Amino acid sequence: MVGSVDSSMNGGGVGGCLIKELVHHDGEREKIVLGRDMHTVSFEITEPDLDDDVTGEREAYMASVLSKYKKSLTEKTKFHLGYPYNLDFDYDALCQLQHFSINNLGDPFIESNYGVHSRQFEVGVLDWFARLWELDKNQYWGYITNCGTEGNLHGILVGREVFPDGILYASQESHYSVFKAARMYRMDCVKVNTLSSGEIDCHDFKSKLLCNKDKPAIVNVNIGTTVKGAVDDLDLVINKLQEAGFSHDRFYIHCDGALFGLMLPFVKRAPKVSFKKAIGSVSVSGHKFVGCPMPCGVLITRLEHVKVLSRNVEYLASRDATIMGSRNGHAPLFLWYTLNRKGYRGFRKEVQKCLRNAHYFKDRLVHAGIGAMLNELSSTVVFERPHDEEFVRKWQLACQGNIAHVVVMPNVTIHKLDDFLDELVQKRDAWFGEGKSQPPCIASDVGIHNCLCALHR
Amino acid sequence: MVGSVDSSMNGGGVGGCLIKELVHHDGEREKIVLGRDMHTVSFEITEPDLDDDVTGEREAYMASVLSKYKKSLTEKTKFHLGYPYNLDFDYDALCQLQHFSINNLGDPFIESNYGVHSRQFEVGVLDWFARLWELDKNQYWGYITNCGTEGNLHGILVGREVFPDGILYASQESHYSVFKAARMYRMDCVKVNTLSSGEIDCHDFKSKLLCNKDKPAIVNVNIGTTVKGAVDDLDLVINKLQEAGFSHDRFYIHCDGALFGLMLPFVKRAPKVSFKKAIGSVSVSGHKFVGCPMPCGVLITRLEHVKVLSRNVEYLASRDATIMGSRNGHAPLFLWYTLNRKGYRGFRKEVQKCLRNAHYFKDRLVHAGIGAMLNELSSTVVFERPHDEEFVRKWQLACQGNIAHVVVMPNVTIHKLDDFLDELVQKRDAWFGEGKSQPPCIASDVGIHNCLCALHR
Repeated sequence: MVGSVDSSMNGGGVGGCLIKELVHHDGEREKIVLGRDMHTVSFEITEPDLDDDVTGEREAYMASVLSKYKKSLTEKTKFHLGYPYNLDFDYDALCQLQHFSINNLGDPFIESNYGVHSRQFEVGVLDWFARLWELDKNQYWGYITNCGTEGNLHGILVGREVFPDGILYASQESHYSVFKAARMYRMDCVKVNTLSSGEIDCHDFKSKLLCNKDKPAIVNVNIGTTVKGAVDDLDLVINKLQEAGFSHDRFYIHCDGALFGLMLPFVKRAPKVSFKKAIGSVSVSGHKFVGCPMPCGVLITRLEHVKVLSRNVEYLASRDATIMGSRNGHAPLFLWYTLNRKGYRGFRKEVQKCLRNAHYFKDRLVHAGIGAMLNELSSTVVFERPHDEEFVRKWQLACQGNIAHVVVMPNVTIHKLDDFLDELVQKRDAWFGEGKSQPPCIASDVGIHNCLCALHR
Repeated sequence: MVGSVDSSMNGGGVGGCLIKELVHHDGEREKIVLGRDMHTVSFEITEPDLDDDVTGEREAYMASVLSKYKKSLTEKTKFHLGYPYNLDFDYDALCQLQHFSINNLGDPFIESNYGVHSRQFEVGVLDWFARLWELDKNQYWGYITNCGTEGNLHGILVGREVFPDGILYASQESHYSVFKAARMYRMDCVKVNTLSSGEIDCHDFKSKLLCNKDKPAIVNVNIGTTVKGAVDDLDLVINKLQEAGFSHDRFYIHCDGALFGLMLPFVKRAPKVSFKKAIGSVSVSGHKFVGCPMPCGVLITRLEHVKVLSRNVEYLASRDATIMGSRNGHAPLFLWYTLNRKGYRGFRKEVQKCLRNAHYFKDRLVHAGIGAMLNELSSTVVFERPHDEEFVRKWQLACQGNIAHVVVMPNVTIHKLDDFLDELVQKRDAWFGEGKSQPPCIASDVGIHNCLCALHR
């Protein structure tokens, strides 16, 4: 009657994986291993039988699917290491609100006629972030987004509206949403080189600025890159803009703080992301360091900028300055709940634990002869990509070329890292033992000094 | 220690409302009443006291805030009439999944390395919609969005990528996200007139097409406009394109089905939204007719189109064809659950009930001497804007100029409509009795034949 409950949800095997050859604009070819084709394992929705209400068969089928699904999520959550998501949260107290269709449509600061909203919590959260990044309550505007991408899309859109003919500068290790924004918004975009740490190469940045002195600059600054967790030097970026002759009224800086925007403030001696500096906007993800059942994020910008954005909107009898119209009203509640419980002190403790554990992990990797890199301000440990796709999938590592990374989040314990390492070391013996093959060289990704391949060790 | 629990959450009064004067580009001025300034009623997040863990004071404070909030949501939900949200749902069975950080990042059909996802449910939902709109399983692509706006942003972006120099045509009663898209994407946009029903004026459409014969056409077709619930005549739109000399390879149609995309298929003798016609994409909201705790939506397009979109993306080693990166993995579960339980049969029953109730409501309004309009295929009843903002806010009506509307959704019973009407009739006596003032004329909004003002009754 209804599709089989046994459809595989373990996802372990690499059997059904898609392999695709990408052809870039410049003619370069790249082979990528994609995940499984989901059509083969999806749960079909079928028309209820006429007597389902009586027999209860459908309810039973659905309960059984959901129960197995829950079990698989528990497994997946247990082994996850690769993405910067804090999977450790407890929102039982908020379950009672799942019965409501909570929608903060439009502006967070102006109530709409739809009464089932959570703006009173959203604004509390926004105030907290504005304080963290040192922008006065009366001088900021912001909202809770659906994810880091929406924050970047918004920050860059504000930049473009402030400087319609501005050029977007972003390091080549910026998140893909930054380049997606350039394409969507039809902006000229200049990619800037990076150092082997993953930071923006400010020398290259300045020379590219000098080539385009006639156009204002919209700059994406990474507060923790996606792959290497590298933090661009904000002060140096501003410095280079000034050296290249760009005065304050001719540049706009958006800080992409996806993961690290919320960690950096709690790292000792770290440079500050602050609106006391010449920045225009900061975005951060809510499901990353805070942890949340669904993706969300925070975008903070200067009120004066968003006025530029909304003043130009003639088609709406209200301020339409968010990218999405209807907005998830549950996300603010999750954030409000955790921020209130943990506070600055709680986050500081967790950040310090993450950095400690990341150092422990990196040291153990190097000790085991595995090339690895850990940026000073980061908890993202980069190392050679494991040889076996099944192992990569089991631990849900994010990979790029020859490197993989583990992001040490609050839910990643020493014990979990040990388990992972023990298994990796054992597997490497099988992959590389007895001269079968060599571990990959990762010098071009992380620098010669961090590579432990046959040539560089 | 922590902000007062008593901050007003009733939101009833109009006391703290903002009033703003908009100045349009053409110099026209418009006064709009905005909602309350939320800064005055938000719940501040404060740093926990050192002994909070011991005293339990903070937990108690938060529990008390949430409990009051829940009560206010119950009230608001009870009185809501103005927005097209089905507030009647029961997802208790899914509460067990709130412990997981479920994220369908990227493409729905290609598994990413992050294992905690719900793609197997998402694809089941998408298949269901593709079947509804008659597009073969192997020929469609789509995803579950964060809201109707994201669906429109995506559909129009696909149109622009297919025709980079295309002009966007949209009736002036299209959702504001359509014009937002034009602005974001830097597309030329032509606004087309509407009939008094709210439908696109195809005569005007054709004459505007003829003025721009050298550029391809990207057309937004409304399957239920926001304010009047008007359904554009898709067949006539295609007809006019052909008459104006636009062959199939020179136009792209996006259907904005926000609310009605899911109702129309179940209305007897209604025209069909179908990929057997020359359309490129359809979007619909998930939190509207289906009902969902948070906003979501579905976008379906032709696989060939999204290939155009993703082929051009050189910066990602995977198919990046969604607008957002991280995507809410809970939304597919909510939709899967309801679609499975109700099926086509269940939706048909609900749609018929809504249309019946809408007719009942419209007839009662007219009988009471209140000008009103109900489009043939719609459950959105438009009528004169109530005189009193407090009344509007109590019932959470959406208003525009002199008109307001009630959207009759599955949770809106005859009993609720009667309550509303009884109160409205009583209030009108107070507002307009004894010649105090006159009800507004709404002829220019809904046509002379639907207006019952002093002049037209």
